[in-house]
Amino acid sequence: MSKPIRVVQFGVGPIGQDCIRTILAKEATGLIQLVGAIDVDPEKAGKDVTEILGRSGRSGIVVRNDADAVLSDTPADVVLHTTSSFLDTVHHQLVQCVRRGVHVVSSTEELSYPYDRHPELSTELDGLAKHNGVAIVGTGVNPGYAMDSLALIATGVCSDVRELHVERVVDAGKRRLPLQKKVGAGMTIAEFAEQKKTGRFGHIGLRESLLFVAEGLGWSLDRIEENLDPVISDRDVQTPFMTVANGSVAGIHHAIAGYVDGCAILTLDLKMYVGAREPHDAVHVDGSPPIDLVVREGIFGDTATVAALVNAIPLVMKSEPGLHTMMDLPIPRAFATTPTLQKKARAA
Amino acid sequence: MSKPIRVVQFGVGPIGQDCIRTILAKEATGLIQLVGAIDVDPEKAGKDVTEILGRSGRSGIVVRNDADAVLSDTPADVVLHTTSSFLDTVHHQLVQCVRRGVHVVSSTEELSYPYDRHPELSTELDGLAKHNGVAIVGTGVNPGYAMDSLALIATGVCSDVRELHVERVVDAGKRRLPLQKKVGAGMTIAEFAEQKKTGRFGHIGLRESLLFVAEGLGWSLDRIEENLDPVISDRDVQTPFMTVANGSVAGIHHAIAGYVDGCAILTLDLKMYVGAREPHDAVHVDGSPPIDLVVREGIFGDTATVAALVNAIPLVMKSEPGLHTMMDLPIPRAFATTPTLQKKARAA
Repeated sequence: MSKPIRVVQFGVGPIGQDCIRTILAKEATGLIQLVGAIDVDPEKAGKDVTEILGRSGRSGIVVRNDADAVLSDTPADVVLHTTSSFLDTVHHQLVQCVRRGVHVVSSTEELSYPYDRHPELSTELDGLAKHNGVAIVGTGVNPGYAMDSLALIATGVCSDVRELHVERVVDAGKRRLPLQKKVGAGMTIAEFAEQKKTGRFGHIGLRESLLFVAEGLGWSLDRIEENLDPVISDRDVQTPFMTVANGSVAGIHHAIAGYVDGCAILTLDLKMYVGAREPHDAVHVDGSPPIDLVVREGIFGDTATVAALVNAIPLVMKSEPGLHTMMDLPIPRAFATTPTLQKKARAA
Repeated sequence: MSKPIRVVQFGVGPIGQDCIRTILAKEATGLIQLVGAIDVDPEKAGKDVTEILGRSGRSGIVVRNDADAVLSDTPADVVLHTTSSFLDTVHHQLVQCVRRGVHVVSSTEELSYPYDRHPELSTELDGLAKHNGVAIVGTGVNPGYAMDSLALIATGVCSDVRELHVERVVDAGKRRLPLQKKVGAGMTIAEFAEQKKTGRFGHIGLRESLLFVAEGLGWSLDRIEENLDPVISDRDVQTPFMTVANGSVAGIHHAIAGYVDGCAILTLDLKMYVGAREPHDAVHVDGSPPIDLVVREGIFGDTATVAALVNAIPLVMKSEPGLHTMMDLPIPRAFATTPTLQKKARAA
């Protein structure tokens, strides 16, 4: 049996904590092992990860603030990086990892298709990764899967693709509190408008998903149109964390369209709001043959993002050195999941 | 702009002819080009491919019987190989291609997951491919996509997978005549039983699909159970090619299950029959999160198989040398499809 993949968790916020939970649960397979944890928060430094997870006992993996120190004294294969959505914010962290010769899987949304917004940072990262013989990829449920990889994969059995339309409807009321806040649930319409002006509000990565699909299909778009609007609640809706009153903001409707010859041939339509009716993911391919793909009830993002990240670990390790997107990697699949262990865990 | 990928079509039967049609249609993109055609049928030798397609004019590509001669005097990048379902039958053809230093995409069903049935032939092919610096892959709509790659991809956002169940229901009445014959439509129950005994009747590749998914998930199965039964028509059904009478065979129900600890944790259930109700493809993942993926109306096989083959061409060229399965390649996607060209073609 091969040695387990050694993972350092970089970022111990809510997503990072879920990554740690998942990796620890998978350690029984002998395929993966948590070997280090980094977070800039001084409150977390010196604490064992089990303490941060609110569990008893000790894992022996202590969170430290100094990324470079952890990376230099912890032999590791991959960093699982979950600190921010924005590439300019995390760039120096990624450089630290790459310089230490470890592969990186990151939840940074802008990294899922990085060259468009950040050509210089991306070129630099790609060069550094190649120089150090490691691969980097940004992924998650969205961007990374639901509205881009899966959409592209749906065309894999099509000869002609004339148009491609992707929809995702998420009931934010069933998601964790940060997601409910992120989509503006409970805000007034005026507050929503203020937040929107920051340019860092709502779903991050829709433009990345659009450009990813366009590149995958070899399509050159004439024009891109993006719209972010509030979804206004038509009733009072209660979530475990808040009440969204009738007439206030329930969430976002975020849509983007790519045009060729005046036609919106590639559209991504995302609704994330509290109380959403008929949550689902859908890919409609107007092609030969046509494809009408639906994930009924939708892909539940809180667990799916962490899964997408952990599942990308063996795939990034198989890749050529460099900065990649998910379309360069082998097909996504669940990693380190043994039915016997899980059935036992569920029964216990 | 890069040079077009030069393709030799090996096998000019119904599927091969559709491959030629598709490649010729895509030549306008400048991304792909038909450069040669091989078929063992002496009736086809010396004929221009356009004549075989029943078209006027000449493409300049003439079918020849001598594969080695075509491969030696035609500079090519990839062979698109569509001659038989069985690896022992086509093995020498694949060896010819690989020795001439061309990549191979093949519709040979047994090649989609070749090591189980043919470990020695597969090891030899892999070695030859590596020695000659080329890659080989077997694919199509099924095996290759609907019941294996897509099923595996559906788990890409799951942490735990406890069970995975795949269904495909195909209305054979809407497919070409060879497919209707292949599934036994119109046979008596006794004739079906006779055909079944040959071991080369019905759908080829279900075992390959099962083992592909199991390997992708890292699952080791204790036991495999496979069943092939006739679907008996409950009414008279008319297709463009035949009438299936009430009480006669309408097609096949082919199912396979992989067991762990006495549980059928991985099942593939395929129904292909004339008059099938509610054709669809579905992947049900009992996992975290659960995934309930459906392709409504199903993936239409006649066009999808050819598309899957042509779309695999650029992917196999990006792969390391050797004998691969679709899980080693980057994610499938439509190739050489430009919306503008297609809209013009449709309008014309």
